[in-house]
Amino acid sequence: MGPTIDLVADLGEGFGAWSMGDDKALLDIVSSANIACGFHAGDPDIMEATVAECVRRGVSIGAHPSFPDLRGFGRRAMDLTAAEVRNDVLYQLGALNGFAAYHGTEISHIAPHGRLGNLVATRADYADAVADAAARVRPDLILVAQDGELSKAGSERGLPVGIVGIIDRAYMPDGTLVPRSQPGAVIRDAKAIVDRTIRMVCEGLIRAVDGTDLPITADTVLLHGDNPGAVDLARLIRTELTASGVRIAPLRKVLENKRLVA
Amino acid sequence: MGPTIDLVADLGEGFGAWSMGDDKALLDIVSSANIACGFHAGDPDIMEATVAECVRRGVSIGAHPSFPDLRGFGRRAMDLTAAEVRNDVLYQLGALNGFAAYHGTEISHIAPHGRLGNLVATRADYADAVADAAARVRPDLILVAQDGELSKAGSERGLPVGIVGIIDRAYMPDGTLVPRSQPGAVIRDAKAIVDRTIRMVCEGLIRAVDGTDLPITADTVLLHGDNPGAVDLARLIRTELTASGVRIAPLRKVLENKRLVA
Amino acid sequence: MGPTIDLVADLGEGFGAWSMGDDKALLDIVSSANIACGFHAGDPDIMEATVAECVRRGVSIGAHPSFPDLRGFGRRAMDLTAAEVRNDVLYQLGALNGFAAYHGTEISHIAPHGRLGNLVATRADYADAVADAAARVRPDLILVAQDGELSKAGSERGLPVGIVGIIDRAYMPDGTLVPRSQPGAVIRDAKAIVDRTIRMVCEGLIRAVDGTDLPITADTVLLHGDNPGAVDLARLIRTELTASGVRIAPLRKVLENKRLVA
Amino acid sequence: MGPTIDLVADLGEGFGAWSMGDDKALLDIVSSANIACGFHAGDPDIMEATVAECVRRGVSIGAHPSFPDLRGFGRRAMDLTAAEVRNDVLYQLGALNGFAAYHGTEISHIAPHGRLGNLVATRADYADAVADAAARVRPDLILVAQDGELSKAGSERGLPVGIVGIIDRAYMPDGTLVPRSQPGAVIRDAKAIVDRTIRMVCEGLIRAVDGTDLPITADTVLLHGDNPGAVDLARLIRTELTASGVRIAPLRKVLENKRLVA
Repeated sequence: MGPTIDLVADLGEGFGAWSMGDDKALLDIVSSANIACGFHAGDPDIMEATVAECVRRGVSIGAHPSFPDLRGFGRRAMDLTAAEVRNDVLYQLGALNGFAAYHGTEISHIAPHGRLGNLVATRADYADAVADAAARVRPDLILVAQDGELSKAGSERGLPVGIVGIIDRAYMPDGTLVPRSQPGAVIRDAKAIVDRTIRMVCEGLIRAVDGTDLPITADTVLLHGDNPGAVDLARLIRTELTASGVRIAPLRKVLENKRLVA
Repeated sequence: MGPTIDLVADLGEGFGAWSMGDDKALLDIVSSANIACGFHAGDPDIMEATVAECVRRGVSIGAHPSFPDLRGFGRRAMDLTAAEVRNDVLYQLGALNGFAAYHGTEISHIAPHGRLGNLVATRADYADAVADAAARVRPDLILVAQDGELSKAGSERGLPVGIVGIIDRAYMPDGTLVPRSQPGAVIRDAKAIVDRTIRMVCEGLIRAVDGTDLPITADTVLLHGDNPGAVDLARLIRTELTASGVRIAPLRKVLENKRLVA
Repeated sequence: MGPTIDLVADLGEGFGAWSMGDDKALLDIVSSANIACGFHAGDPDIMEATVAECVRRGVSIGAHPSFPDLRGFGRRAMDLTAAEVRNDVLYQLGALNGFAAYHGTEISHIAPHGRLGNLVATRADYADAVADAAARVRPDLILVAQDGELSKAGSERGLPVGIVGIIDRAYMPDGTLVPRSQPGAVIRDAKAIVDRTIRMVCEGLIRAVDGTDLPITADTVLLHGDNPGAVDLARLIRTELTASGVRIAPLRKVLENKRLVA
Repeated sequence: MGPTIDLVADLGEGFGAWSMGDDKALLDIVSSANIACGFHAGDPDIMEATVAECVRRGVSIGAHPSFPDLRGFGRRAMDLTAAEVRNDVLYQLGALNGFAAYHGTEISHIAPHGRLGNLVATRADYADAVADAAARVRPDLILVAQDGELSKAGSERGLPVGIVGIIDRAYMPDGTLVPRSQPGAVIRDAKAIVDRTIRMVCEGLIRAVDGTDLPITADTVLLHGDNPGAVDLARLIRTELTASGVRIAPLRKVLENKRLVA
């Protein structure tokens, strides 16, 4: 049997009268959704509608908590204490869970958004705040993270961790991402992105910037939908993965399969 | 054995650097708390601290959802659809539940705040929206209400309903409150309020404005703490109730006792 | 010399990462802009950029104040006192004026948005609150209004009033709009809209729903840009007006011309 | 003739139903007010009422702009660009000016609040953003600052600068403040604070932590009112200054006097 992978995208990132991305199209492609919880995007009506759509299509639901900065879309750092981060995450996680419970389902995972998502990879106190919130609310909640402080904090607290593969960014030989400030950091060629995805999922390898092959684990692959080209690429990735014998499945299934194999 | 009654107050109604009322003093008096959920007051840090204190003292936790109007403290009507009300309640109920889960406890009840609290007594669509949200998230959540549309909607959906006794307001002979616009609507004399409370709890009667005695059910009595006099009165009510042989207990206990007796 | 008319549209109605409508295209078509002031849409960065663009192209700047309801886009009624409306308008008008002053220009007009815009036509207290705010801050600020309480309150306080013509709505024989709830209230046929505009501007007449011709004054015509078709129609209206010998000019010019003629 | 000094305090720092400090008492003591503009505190109703009171008593009005962080009371750093800081300042300055204009007065000064107030002393880009906003809106607006980047940026743009004396903080021999993290940084003894104020204003000297006397300029002295003791101290400072022959006057008067003398 071929490998299994989860496809995930950020969804429900409108607010009030404003929308962002083509959620409808993405929902036909992904197996999991990171749903905005009101702090960088997403209001109660959008959250309800997004959860309802996910349930209808069998897409797994994840919390996508953020710094409280609607105007900055959660992309601006805020000097919060770790306790404030923990409380903000508890609030957002709980709020999304209200809609999951209403629709008779459960949240599968949590994936911090934007600048908070960047910082939990390097700030141990923020990472621990997120893991603490998740572990005490739902010990089986999957932490979605790159390698870094958040995945470490999750493992220490016994949470399942799902590693997210970044398919449109160049990797350094040590497995970290090439910083956005450097040339070639972002890969824009659709064919190259598809090829990297297939190789990452099927062979567990990625070509680093220096040409060496890097072993890489990915339980889920992050897709984008913020413009028509992005949605087309997301669809192509799904098609090509399936054609290569890869099975698309929600993250929890992917992690269960690995555990069975291991 | 004497009667049992719950004492409840609105708590956690500060925001950021601002506080409101003397939560510390009230927490020694009440058996239940209506906790603000961020829409009219209460931020994640205040919610966490309030839930933690309630757990430490054995005070039951209730959600106190509001219209989304921080500046108006939830006291201004907003022309929301029933679906918007339901989604706002799901969001706030869920958010508070995040902190309850973090502290290893559960929400016991829900009591809409301010203008929303007024409107659910008379607007069947809003009442049903609140009952629907509560019932699908937690079928055993207690709806706190006066007699009216909300208590009706809760009963229809099989939710336990706790009737709140208003001890500082005059009643009409038909059991409704004398409108605030009329003279004598608000009772300010401390001794009169204490006497009415004792009689309401021990005899199930209240003297209406026309002098007739009215049968009244109260499962919980709403206390205030927004000024030093209010806290002193709340303390006096607890002392006098206890001296009269009344047992103070959280709302769920009160409802269970009634069911046993009935 | 042919008639002069102002063309106006709502602009700067994005927020943070979200945009709404095609402001760039509209700015080439209109002579005046109603700029969102942060309460229903528009943040300081968007306001600054929109004012800068208007200055660059000679488009007149107007304040577009709203109820404080970002999530509801200012479309939901809120039960505010007249003093609250006045203060909210002063705040928004002042805020926009900060950007106008920074770019060396002045606000030309004020046009309440959304539900507030509807209510000032019928609620004398709200209308007077807006007129009071405008008149005491800038006695020469133009009030943009339909016939109704706001235009009345403006005239009483000596403010110049610019009557806005609604070209895609059917009129009753008494000059009020056919309510949206009735069939035929909204005119969607592009050719019909263009014809009505030309007739309104050049002949001062509009055909009412009962077939009679109604005298109508319009100092400015409201265009929309919330979808590609709307922008195309706006462009067509400008072209056809110009072809009919109408001069497009900012509202203040239009009012000055009328005064000269009268 | 003795020296002249301005006494200033932060005012209007409530929000909605919440209040902070004893504005009424402070308004009898100060000659200038830093008024919150809605981003860390202050809503349109509070701003209007505060401006009205200042006008009634002849207290000068200043803008007290902040990072957009109501929940953090503007005390938390946010990673804004300099352009975002400039636009946020323009928005808040303009908004306050709406109320000043309504009450027939003008804003006299601007004093950034909280964390933004700290950062403009050391970050040249933020300092320049504030000075740019002020200078282009009102070239005669007084910048209130400690010695640092903001006072430098203000001078470079030709703005009048008012130096604020900090009377309850210890100074280093180089004229900077002893950091709060060090012992003795905050002076709490009322008599010591009064003595330092008199000496600062009358002799232009302050005793540094190493015992040396430091020359110091102060055009205004910052008073606090966040607790009853603070208000009493503020009143005592005013009484003692007056008894020492110091004249209390709004900042603009103070600066004009200095220019006359110089």
